[in-house]
Amino acid sequence: MNLGKVVGTVVSTRKEPVLEGIRFLLVRLVDTEGKETSSFVVAADAMGAGPGEMVLTAAGSSARQTTMTQNKPVDAVIMAIVDTWDIDGKTKYVK
Amino acid sequence: MNLGKVVGTVVSTRKEPVLEGIRFLLVRLVDTEGKETSSFVVAADAMGAGPGEMVLTAAGSSARQTTMTQNKPVDAVIMAIVDTWDIDGKTKYVK
Amino acid sequence: MNLGKVVGTVVSTRKEPVLEGIRFLLVRLVDTEGKETSSFVVAADAMGAGPGEMVLTAAGSSARQTTMTQNKPVDAVIMAIVDTWDIDGKTKYVK
Amino acid sequence: MNLGKVVGTVVSTRKEPVLEGIRFLLVRLVDTEGKETSSFVVAADAMGAGPGEMVLTAAGSSARQTTMTQNKPVDAVIMAIVDTWDIDGKTKYVK
Amino acid sequence: MNLGKVVGTVVSTRKEPVLEGIRFLLVRLVDTEGKETSSFVVAADAMGAGPGEMVLTAAGSSARQTTMTQNKPVDAVIMAIVDTWDIDGKTKYVK
Repeated sequence: MNLGKVVGTVVSTRKEPVLEGIRFLLVRLVDTEGKETSSFVVAADAMGAGPGEMVLTAAGSSARQTTMTQNKPVDAVIMAIVDTWDIDGKTKYVK
Repeated sequence: MNLGKVVGTVVSTRKEPVLEGIRFLLVRLVDTEGKETSSFVVAADAMGAGPGEMVLTAAGSSARQTTMTQNKPVDAVIMAIVDTWDIDGKTKYVK
Repeated sequence: MNLGKVVGTVVSTRKEPVLEGIRFLLVRLVDTEGKETSSFVVAADAMGAGPGEMVLTAAGSSARQTTMTQNKPVDAVIMAIVDTWDIDGKTKYVK
Repeated sequence: MNLGKVVGTVVSTRKEPVLEGIRFLLVRLVDTEGKETSSFVVAADAMGAGPGEMVLTAAGSSARQTTMTQNKPVDAVIMAIVDTWDIDGKTKYVK
Repeated sequence: MNLGKVVGTVVSTRKEPVLEGIRFLLVRLVDTEGKETSSFVVAADAMGAGPGEMVLTAAGSSARQTTMTQNKPVDAVIMAIVDTWDIDGKTKYVK
């Protein structure tokens, strides 16, 4: 999974009909210190994530293993909201 | 999903028979400000997207989850046309 | 899909038995102007592509969606030979 | 598979219900000499890996081929803990 | 497929039980001239490849399309040993 920060929303009215009701969030990937990078992904939001929250995203066919995304043309999904992470015993992020 | 801009069309007459009738568009990836990058992908067009439109593309097996692309050798599909997106509360793109 | 140019052939006699009879071509990826890059992929040839031809390749599980590659350990396939492409209304390549 | 070192833990209480009980570890990729790189992945831990251990991670749909991860929105899994590796006949890592 | 050279072996005793008996080789990717790059992958060896041999590796779900790797958490497999390859009509590698 990738570690990222929800920074925005992508709105689309013309889309595959099965995508109706799915929210697409713009998630900027972060490094292990939590610093934003220039990489980002647009992910379906299976968690009701809010702006500024740190999240985990799953890609590829794994992105379709949620009730919301099953059998849909979606290749990235937010499947967890991060509370904390640590590196080498030091806390790097607390929500 | 990737965020990209439709910039061209790829024409092919000799192709897998099941691909007959599918339009292949050249989609240049954009950054979060909407600026074109040097990366691009050739995607099947499930939406009737036009030149200059901002779109979302899904990759891998997820690209085959549309009626048009099911069971076909296609690894990228345009599954949504973007109206707007915002970053940190600021609108970055309006169609 | 990736846009690439057929530049060579990879020959292998010791291989998974199901791969018998499949030709593996060396495809160098090109940029949107058709200029060769340093990236390349070895792809199964489902089209009878010849040296110098511009082709589209599909990757991952999508590479197994042709009669020739079905259920085989192949992660890239040439599924179309390109006639032309254009960018911003200008023809960039004609076969 | 990627070769990486377990350097931390990612904690999430709000997540897809099926992910309950799965531990997510932060794995920093290493080069062939065992030196840490700046790349990392968050992987489900199918092995009970501990901090500092060198591991192999499998990505994509292959990450769902363990009892713990089957049919779950997980795109990276630790499926082996590394004892040793060698390059050109020289041992590069011993646990 | 990627073109690579077998340069080492990764040994693991604690691993998913279904991986018992599978040999994991360290494969360094090469460029089209056969020169080693800094990129590498750890791949299951379905071919009995030896050190120094040039091989093709298949990634993702395609890596599970061999008898040895079917339904196992493996995302890269050696499915062919390379005899020769040529670029623009010139032989670049002969075993």
